[in-house]
Amino acid sequence: MKKQTQIFGIRAIIEAINSDKTIDKVFLQKGLKGELFTELETLLRKQDISTSYVPIEKLNRLTKKNHQGAVGQISPIAFYDLENLVLSVLESGKTPMFLLLDQLSDVRNFGAIIRTAECTGVSGIIIQKKGGAPVNGDTIKTSAGAVFKVPICKVDHIKDAVFYMQASGIKVIAATEKTNNNIYDISFKEPCAIIMGSEGKGINPSILKIVDEKAKLPLLGDIESLNVSVACGAFLYESVRQRLTINN
Amino acid sequence: MKKQTQIFGIRAIIEAINSDKTIDKVFLQKGLKGELFTELETLLRKQDISTSYVPIEKLNRLTKKNHQGAVGQISPIAFYDLENLVLSVLESGKTPMFLLLDQLSDVRNFGAIIRTAECTGVSGIIIQKKGGAPVNGDTIKTSAGAVFKVPICKVDHIKDAVFYMQASGIKVIAATEKTNNNIYDISFKEPCAIIMGSEGKGINPSILKIVDEKAKLPLLGDIESLNVSVACGAFLYESVRQRLTINN
Repeated sequence: MKKQTQIFGIRAIIEAINSDKTIDKVFLQKGLKGELFTELETLLRKQDISTSYVPIEKLNRLTKKNHQGAVGQISPIAFYDLENLVLSVLESGKTPMFLLLDQLSDVRNFGAIIRTAECTGVSGIIIQKKGGAPVNGDTIKTSAGAVFKVPICKVDHIKDAVFYMQASGIKVIAATEKTNNNIYDISFKEPCAIIMGSEGKGINPSILKIVDEKAKLPLLGDIESLNVSVACGAFLYESVRQRLTINN
Repeated sequence: MKKQTQIFGIRAIIEAINSDKTIDKVFLQKGLKGELFTELETLLRKQDISTSYVPIEKLNRLTKKNHQGAVGQISPIAFYDLENLVLSVLESGKTPMFLLLDQLSDVRNFGAIIRTAECTGVSGIIIQKKGGAPVNGDTIKTSAGAVFKVPICKVDHIKDAVFYMQASGIKVIAATEKTNNNIYDISFKEPCAIIMGSEGKGINPSILKIVDEKAKLPLLGDIESLNVSVACGAFLYESVRQRLTINN
């Protein structure tokens, strides 16, 4: 957790939330009680902010300041609203290419993916509010600063974003080995969104059920999967190739 | 440095070298003298093994054992001989695809690249003896075990490998932004070797002068380069695509 994006103290965190700061995560002291503390807990639940109950020693490691049992992390970037972003991309006249990340957990993979997204002209990245890698100092570094250039949206569930994409006329393609469709037989020329799964579990089965297409990269060896940021790059560059090539 | 691949003691390291163990690197105590120590130094120079002179405190951190001023790292894999490997690949009847890494320094990138190489059927990876990331525990982990499946060769200079490839009828393609040639206009269908540069400096200019082709991935945003393991994946998958596709 980077110091510059840290806030501490129960009242300070309540104020930050009420003044619409984007809070990534709040660590609360296990077993703590009190009226103000309960007010913060209620607010965190209402705003659906990721919260973790930890021993006081962990809070003391996070900050040397008087934290009063609560340490929060302010996001270094402002997140976009999904509906506004999709609308503005559709209005821009460019063929949309969205990237949906289903609870990707490694910060370095997340950063490399944001960097690749910037380099391939991705319209926006959609992540889930909970369960994924945060946008922190390491993300900024491994993204080579791309976090400040590619719009990022947070949604309650990736599934909601899939439905919203589909309702907006955007084809949703899952990058998964659980298909017979080779990536090179899939068209990326129309408005598209690509979903990448988490490092350990891939894409949630309930999401795989609702996508428009599934596509896999050929694996010619014995190892059954690629690093997710490498796989994402191969998908995005296949879409770049198809969109640049007139006849294929 | 992983404990299981560590050796220490001047005589032990001399024995390991003489019995053809692959030593990645040796740390020697700065300012140490003595007949046996000089013998080790001479042997290290003769065998061109990467050597680093460090304060005794660093050696004490590397091992708690009685190191006598010398700690070495045995490579967890055996390296292939370049000439034998190229010959056996040519004889196999498969279209060769070699990967040359010009002093890539990040272990996680190195591991991810070896993993991608295994997944795309790369015939072998060629690295330089000095200046690059080692094959250690982290490389094994990030490669998902692919280090044990893809042949890896160490050469004195990447340039030697370029000349050897060309003399064997293998086209050498540099992945570089310093060209007007788009990757999609380059043919990967014939016997090929792809060179990837280091994270900071890219491919050495003296190597760029001697390659057969240069190719770049289109960069559609403001950021001027991709993560090297992502770029390598996009190159290798473009070659997979071309080799799988009959008409293109």
